[in-house]
Amino acid sequence: MILAKIHVTLKASVLDPEGTTVTKSLHALGYDEVEDVRIGKYMEVKINTTDRKTAEERVTEMCERLLANTVIEKYSFELTEV
Amino acid sequence: MILAKIHVTLKASVLDPEGTTVTKSLHALGYDEVEDVRIGKYMEVKINTTDRKTAEERVTEMCERLLANTVIEKYSFELTEV
Repeated sequence: MILAKIHVTLKASVLDPEGTTVTKSLHALGYDEVEDVRIGKYMEVKINTTDRKTAEERVTEMCERLLANTVIEKYSFELTEV
Repeated sequence: MILAKIHVTLKASVLDPEGTTVTKSLHALGYDEVEDVRIGKYMEVKINTTDRKTAEERVTEMCERLLANTVIEKYSFELTEV
């Protein structure tokens, strides 16, 4: 079994209104040292295979087709055996 | 400046309907090797300080008070200088 740990984040050029809201909330709570917050998704996908190379190709495909919106988001992942 | 990379994920005992939906969608696209998907949040918080120890305490507080719902979620973070 292989576990893919996937990060999907907004591209640097894309505005992050959710992050802005969290920044404001943190300021309101007194955390004035917070400069910026960016919010993304973190996914753990368990894959029934032992072949790392195939898993890497398949996870890349999943990200391109479903898990990330590559117009505005970028993704990265690492694979670990579980 | 310190960057906190924070992961907020559902506790293992908590059902993840969003993950179940993604699993089904991946199966519908032909990725039958997918066994399970768990979905969490990933946040990057930029903090205007150079003191790691203070940053660690403050980020822990931010997670407890705002960023995570500790009834159903757990969090972890790492700090890097930027």
